Amino acid sequence: MLSNLFRDFPAAALNAQEETFEALLAHPGIRIERIISTGQASPVDFWYCQPQDEWVLVVQGSAGLQFADEDRVRELQAGDFVNIAAQRQHRVAWTAAGETTIWLAVHYGDLTSQATDAPATPARQM
Amino acid sequence: MLSNLFRDFPAAALNAQEETFEALLAHPGIRIERIISTGQASPVDFWYCQPQDEWVLVVQGSAGLQFADEDRVRELQAGDFVNIAAQRQHRVAWTAAGETTIWLAVHYGDLTSQATDAPATPARQM
Repeated sequence: MLSNLFRDFPAAALNAQEETFEALLAHPGIRIERIISTGQASPVDFWYCQPQDEWVLVVQGSAGLQFADEDRVRELQAGDFVNIAAQRQHRVAWTAAGETTIWLAVHYGDLTSQATDAPATPARQM
Repeated sequence: MLSNLFRDFPAAALNAQEETFEALLAHPGIRIERIISTGQASPVDFWYCQPQDEWVLVVQGSAGLQFADEDRVRELQAGDFVNIAAQRQHRVAWTAAGETTIWLAVHYGDLTSQATDAPATPARQM
């Protein structure tokens, strides 16, 4: 049972093969997950558009978060957090190459589509 | 507007005067807060007994978390997280002296008593 954000990384994260998503808490109305990125970004022209709100924190590393309604990509460093309203289009423009970026994502609000643990997200590309 | 967990500490935290609590997100059914401890602990024989569930993460520093139904105090280091069910009695046995411990607390579930921003907690003593 995972109990520390900095330990027990999945093999795919250790090998920097792909971005990994792990549920830390799942409860009606809330899901907390650890996301580990190793240089991945959202596919070009792909936008997340989620039915629920998401509060996201960069615990370690850095990333670029882009909103469809903003011109400039936001650079997130360790400790930075952002609240992303449901349906607000956004994408991960970049994550730090050559290091491990750890995100804590808190999904809340309408989680009626939370039937499975699988995130409703495509694999991000390197 | 606070946007990074590691910056903009309240004066009381900078001066290690008292434990500080700041709401980072307040929404029906969820409240996320930053707690900064500088050696404080819960009063002796005091137990938190909250109407809502709480998922808590030590982001930096260390602390001892004690449950009334456990013999041993849990030592939490940076990255450790614990889910505390509503009504489960617990207290903060200690926080690291001489350094700054930063907690991220996610309160969820029954937040009907969330009328004010003030945490339903006593001041913890040094």
